[in-house]
Amino acid sequence: MVPDEPPHRRFDSGGPTLAQTGESTVLRLLSEMAKTISGSRLVVGSGDDGAVWRPPSGADVVVSQDAIVEGKDFRRSWLTPWQLGRRAFNVAVSDLAGMGARPAWCMATLCAPGTTEIEDVAEIQAGLCEAALEADCAVAGGDLSDIDGPLVLDVTVAGTVPEGLCLRRDGGSPGDALLVTGTLGTAAAGLLVQSGEPVRAREEDRRRWRDALLDPRARLREAVELLERGVACGGDLSDGLLVDAGRTADASGCGAELWLDAVPAEASLRLAFRERWPELALGGGEDFELLVALPSRTTAQLVRGWPEVLAPLSVVGRLVGEGGVRLLDRRGGREIPLPPVASRHYR
Amino acid sequence: MVPDEPPHRRFDSGGPTLAQTGESTVLRLLSEMAKTISGSRLVVGSGDDGAVWRPPSGADVVVSQDAIVEGKDFRRSWLTPWQLGRRAFNVAVSDLAGMGARPAWCMATLCAPGTTEIEDVAEIQAGLCEAALEADCAVAGGDLSDIDGPLVLDVTVAGTVPEGLCLRRDGGSPGDALLVTGTLGTAAAGLLVQSGEPVRAREEDRRRWRDALLDPRARLREAVELLERGVACGGDLSDGLLVDAGRTADASGCGAELWLDAVPAEASLRLAFRERWPELALGGGEDFELLVALPSRTTAQLVRGWPEVLAPLSVVGRLVGEGGVRLLDRRGGREIPLPPVASRHYR
Repeated sequence: MVPDEPPHRRFDSGGPTLAQTGESTVLRLLSEMAKTISGSRLVVGSGDDGAVWRPPSGADVVVSQDAIVEGKDFRRSWLTPWQLGRRAFNVAVSDLAGMGARPAWCMATLCAPGTTEIEDVAEIQAGLCEAALEADCAVAGGDLSDIDGPLVLDVTVAGTVPEGLCLRRDGGSPGDALLVTGTLGTAAAGLLVQSGEPVRAREEDRRRWRDALLDPRARLREAVELLERGVACGGDLSDGLLVDAGRTADASGCGAELWLDAVPAEASLRLAFRERWPELALGGGEDFELLVALPSRTTAQLVRGWPEVLAPLSVVGRLVGEGGVRLLDRRGGREIPLPPVASRHYR
Repeated sequence: MVPDEPPHRRFDSGGPTLAQTGESTVLRLLSEMAKTISGSRLVVGSGDDGAVWRPPSGADVVVSQDAIVEGKDFRRSWLTPWQLGRRAFNVAVSDLAGMGARPAWCMATLCAPGTTEIEDVAEIQAGLCEAALEADCAVAGGDLSDIDGPLVLDVTVAGTVPEGLCLRRDGGSPGDALLVTGTLGTAAAGLLVQSGEPVRAREEDRRRWRDALLDPRARLREAVELLERGVACGGDLSDGLLVDAGRTADASGCGAELWLDAVPAEASLRLAFRERWPELALGGGEDFELLVALPSRTTAQLVRGWPEVLAPLSVVGRLVGEGGVRLLDRRGGREIPLPPVASRHYR
């Protein structure tokens, strides 16, 4: 078996620290790295008081900001600095996917204690830059702050949608079908594996689940495709199906009904976690898939014409008149108790 | 004498905490507060996956992100939560002033431990919203994260400039005059007073210096006026005159010469700090004034026509051919040693 060695430097491998090197030197380094991922619409890139971006005409601008915090969202022993940079970008950009936007630019604030090694900071920036490049997103700069505490990486992302069009949580109506992209629960499975929980599963499954947790991808192409095909109500699944279906239903003044047998989860995950799989697939967050609502008469056409190269769509339930989220064993079946929600924030 | 009691709740005055209340309740509260400061160009405000903003046509968008961190940039005992929210916004928006931009929208991430009281979080948001309103800036949302460490408030600001126009650090030439707005060193004096350093000064001076530190205002109107009058090179003075003159000179491929007798500092500050005043006025940061460079032949006209309601302009030196920053006792006078720089980041 090939050893599970990450291709990039681990945290705290040794080398000069921020406190030893000084802020201006490090800021210059980060700025130079950012400038390599610019693009034609960034009129002034990283390095001045602010960046200057020229928006395309006829576009609305979608913006979001999302932080990941050491000890809450990740542990240094779990990932490399490079993976951290990638993950922070991809988690943040998932909010653009949730709105149907194409990424345009991003910025990041890194709060790091003076003992942090320069090489780790550079690797975080390299990971962020690489993930931004993959998403065709310019890196417009950011901030570096001293902190007497955990690492914080706070990423702002901006993207564009055609004027007046976007995926909104409040655009649903009773009777709308609820669809998700991809499969659910893999990141939650990765969290259990990563936390050392004894799980009987093949090494390749365990690795895929860990990858889903540590190196998630936002459904950017799927989001743009959904918007272009006329879908108006949607959002991402960062907090898990139960929470996000509730949020979309709430915003739309509806309730939601989910059908357990329709929830897409890997066969190997169901097998490994047995009766716990619904907890992972419905209650676990961080899958960064999409949840959309659309009139049920248009569902068949959307699914039929859906490009095969994109993550598949699954109908998982529908919006209903009354409030709250209910779980049925299958469409038209009997109601079953909701599995617990595994949120790691202010429990 | 009137007691020095702030008009707003102090940190940790008692009440339910984030951990007791739960994230979604608090996020809803913050979102409702943000929505009160929206404006017509915010198509979708706080509460969805992202906010949607419609940029005015013919504008470039200036963006910046700036964090303030407890224990590094502020102490809880120094200011109220409301002042913290104000300060975080005003510090961030100063970067827009440094580019000559009019504020359009802002977003903020608050990282706060579970023991933080809801009322404190609401006060931080209220302070931020008030400062944003004063700057005619919409509040587009943000993020709330749990942290096992100090408070972090990371603010993203976006503004607009006419297409192709902004104040850039790299727009200067040898021979250009260097001008600053307002007076320098007051925030540094406030820091010394606040830190309990024995300073012989009247109570009203001490209070004004503390206010300059704790409740700074960005020079937004001055910046727009400078841009409209054709100034092309400039930036803010967040890190102090020595550092920021060096940065502007560097970016412009020049050196800088500063004239001590021309540096604008309050008479009471010179009196109180005696031979240390240049250290405060040149080496102290966080005054959030502006530094611009412009051809010396246009200086007289700019100063003569400068509106009296705005912070005054002072010529403090010039850009020169060689690199580095030099200090002369007066224009054409003898060189004197540079005072120390008082940066609090990664010393």
